[in-house]
Amino acid sequence: MIETPYLLFLGDAPDMLAAKVAIGIRDWRPEYAVGQYRMDGCKADLGLPDLSLEEAKAKGVKTLVIGVANRGGIISPAWKKVLVQALEEGFDLASGLHNLLRDEPDLKAVAEATGRQLHDVRVPSVQYPIANGVKRRGKRCLAVGTDCSVGKMYTALCMEKDMRERGMKATFRATGQTGILITGGGVPLDAVIADFMAGSIEYLTPDNDADHWDLIEGQGSLFHVSYSGVTLALVHGGQPDALVVCHEPTRPHMRGLPGYKLPTLEQVRDMALALARVANPAAQVIGYSINTQHMKEDEARAYLAEVERTLGLPATDPYRFGAGKLVDALATL
Amino acid sequence: MIETPYLLFLGDAPDMLAAKVAIGIRDWRPEYAVGQYRMDGCKADLGLPDLSLEEAKAKGVKTLVIGVANRGGIISPAWKKVLVQALEEGFDLASGLHNLLRDEPDLKAVAEATGRQLHDVRVPSVQYPIANGVKRRGKRCLAVGTDCSVGKMYTALCMEKDMRERGMKATFRATGQTGILITGGGVPLDAVIADFMAGSIEYLTPDNDADHWDLIEGQGSLFHVSYSGVTLALVHGGQPDALVVCHEPTRPHMRGLPGYKLPTLEQVRDMALALARVANPAAQVIGYSINTQHMKEDEARAYLAEVERTLGLPATDPYRFGAGKLVDALATL
Repeated sequence: MIETPYLLFLGDAPDMLAAKVAIGIRDWRPEYAVGQYRMDGCKADLGLPDLSLEEAKAKGVKTLVIGVANRGGIISPAWKKVLVQALEEGFDLASGLHNLLRDEPDLKAVAEATGRQLHDVRVPSVQYPIANGVKRRGKRCLAVGTDCSVGKMYTALCMEKDMRERGMKATFRATGQTGILITGGGVPLDAVIADFMAGSIEYLTPDNDADHWDLIEGQGSLFHVSYSGVTLALVHGGQPDALVVCHEPTRPHMRGLPGYKLPTLEQVRDMALALARVANPAAQVIGYSINTQHMKEDEARAYLAEVERTLGLPATDPYRFGAGKLVDALATL
Repeated sequence: MIETPYLLFLGDAPDMLAAKVAIGIRDWRPEYAVGQYRMDGCKADLGLPDLSLEEAKAKGVKTLVIGVANRGGIISPAWKKVLVQALEEGFDLASGLHNLLRDEPDLKAVAEATGRQLHDVRVPSVQYPIANGVKRRGKRCLAVGTDCSVGKMYTALCMEKDMRERGMKATFRATGQTGILITGGGVPLDAVIADFMAGSIEYLTPDNDADHWDLIEGQGSLFHVSYSGVTLALVHGGQPDALVVCHEPTRPHMRGLPGYKLPTLEQVRDMALALARVANPAAQVIGYSINTQHMKEDEARAYLAEVERTLGLPATDPYRFGAGKLVDALATL
């Protein structure tokens, strides 16, 4: 686990898009986001207090999180002075960049000398077990998509927020870099060795209170030929009681696969349910989460109404219109 | 690729069961199996000439293959003298043991000094790409199972042998340690990083002649919750034109999962076909391969007849009764 709270390092981010990780932390774990650190020329602004390292220290910050991605995912030389200084001041560092903190000799040496941690959330830090398939206590909900990057993480985070506001017991379980940085822990599933994928998800979602829900972040799609194996490990390792089918209606083809059409919602519903019931015969699809960011509001509402009419289950864009309908459905299980 | 032919090292094997890898090489690639090397007390015998290292050298052997597994998969100290001597004599070493040759300081040092190769087939030696899903030339057949260890490798090897005898173009494509040692190359799929699983299978089964068949070794099962993700990566990375469903009828539950019943042949047929058609809309199930080793001959024949009658496709135990029926079905595609 990464120690919280965080100082969000934005470096010399050229625009807000580059600060996606920091925005996610601010939006979903505002209690972790004590302030931002911007270098000269930084064009991103989270609307958080600009803090020096000394000020952050005084406010109890434990970890400086690299909340910015630059082209190629490298650790920019321009950042090094701040990162080294942060270690010297007693902060841990956390990063989801492709190039690892631990592979930078200067950062590694200073971290060792100061006894600080370098968290590279892109690579596993645990030797996960092989899945044993044993039924676990507590309940689990998994977001499955028609495609990659259709809003599975946001769906789970929206549901967690709504559930906590209702006083339900709910924990978002991160399976990707951004989710891990947002919550401080999780499994970087795409970097796990094949034999241990399902086991890593069992490890991530252990026995819990009977009325506790894990909201498991989905990855890939059962219909995306590059990553479908990762998705199936989530379905079988997660033993979901509830599945939410996620979709982005304006996408012309599967992400990165021009020759592949998206499956229908019905296809994903039926395939995910049949596979989920291998691990949990009680599994149910409880609703649809539609990413309507590229649709006008009336278009979006009409689309959602049509999904509800034809498929007979609640449909919402949880980020735009709230996750309430999905949580209502969960609450009946 | 591992250089052939081989000297099969049996060490101090306590019985024939421990020599499973060597038996596989002898049975499926007899042209590679020039001789065996047995130490004092060895209880296994492949019926091959016992050769000294000098004799093996004279017969053109290139690689000494550790054809024996001992408890724990370790490299026994008792073997070290022979292994070091083999490197000194100019042989490469190949092993599928859990403990790696390269992690033995003495073997590593001698291999470096003599310029010989240490092949640890349990770990990938290639940085595989992410799958791109592009349709490849040539044809592919994949064995899918109701469970792990039901005979998928033997099915593919039997079919390859039959096809070569008929003059068809066929290549067994290994995806596990034993298969890699038998053929000298392949992908150790269970050790590949999640994101690259399907890509490793695309790499393993590249463009080929239009009338060439890859016989892809299956792994796991879509219904085995520990390894199903690995199986789906094979289904989507392999783009199979033909699927053979493999089964062992006497198994009481899924291997290693006492709480899980085996799926029916129909369930595996339907699930594998639906998923395979995502990557290859022309995919077909062409027959059933039944591992009847625990059944009497009349029982086995009755079972196969019943499968053919109820499922309407050829069924055989390819190891016991020949793979002809399955190859006949392939030849019509």
